Amino acid sequence: MDLTEAEARRRFTESPSAVLATADADGRPHAVPVVHIVIGDHVYIAIDDKPKKMSDPLRLKRLRNIAANPQVCVLAEFYDEDWTYLWWVRADGIARVISFDDGPEGLLGAFHDRHPFHATQPPSGPVVDVEVTRWTGWAFSVL
Amino acid sequence: MDLTEAEARRRFTESPSAVLATADADGRPHAVPVVHIVIGDHVYIAIDDKPKKMSDPLRLKRLRNIAANPQVCVLAEFYDEDWTYLWWVRADGIARVISFDDGPEGLLGAFHDRHPFHATQPPSGPVVDVEVTRWTGWAFSVL
Repeated sequence: MDLTEAEARRRFTESPSAVLATADADGRPHAVPVVHIVIGDHVYIAIDDKPKKMSDPLRLKRLRNIAANPQVCVLAEFYDEDWTYLWWVRADGIARVISFDDGPEGLLGAFHDRHPFHATQPPSGPVVDVEVTRWTGWAFSVL
Repeated sequence: MDLTEAEARRRFTESPSAVLATADADGRPHAVPVVHIVIGDHVYIAIDDKPKKMSDPLRLKRLRNIAANPQVCVLAEFYDEDWTYLWWVRADGIARVISFDDGPEGLLGAFHDRHPFHATQPPSGPVVDVEVTRWTGWAFSVL
């Protein structure tokens, strides 16, 4: 059944990970797992990749796609073999690439607090800032 | 580290679920959780939604997107709070929408055998047939 917007936001916010879908200028989709923080109507996504082959993280495909086409979709979901537990939430919006300095106060700390890995190895790259225009969600059953 | 194509295929094939990313004619991405079967270089995705509001499943956004733009990306991934277990595999390809009758022999049975839910409620809708042109994958560490 469809989730209310409030319940969709709650589940999305609490989900430890999500998938970021972008598309390039030719409309070719690209999906990658991400970690995120929700503040208001913005989803912030840390870029943790330290690509061996590229010194400039802005060359990452997801960031090149956003530069060419800022429309993005971020999906949080839960899978279990017992499908009565399934749910997903989709945040559709417009993305831009910023630095932590350009983000809201406390953003870096929020990533630190959220993920044990970030506590020891803070995200240092660019940040994807998604202004969400639509929250939608579904659950097999709402408990 | 990057996965070999063989290891990427193996992990993708064994993953119980995945995310299908499509984009519409305007390049707006759309992501949805899916279950899949891999046969050769094809990923088959069952459409289980029985949308209350639509009698025609072809009106589902993911299928309308494929009709407008057959380029798709299917992502299988594993998340754990201990990031040393993280991995993902991406299958990029070209999709078309078929029926089970048009698929390879044994396809419906493969979904039955794979998912307990499908054993009692077989998928009956259309099937997304993705011809994969590229398998790529990454794991934090390869055990």
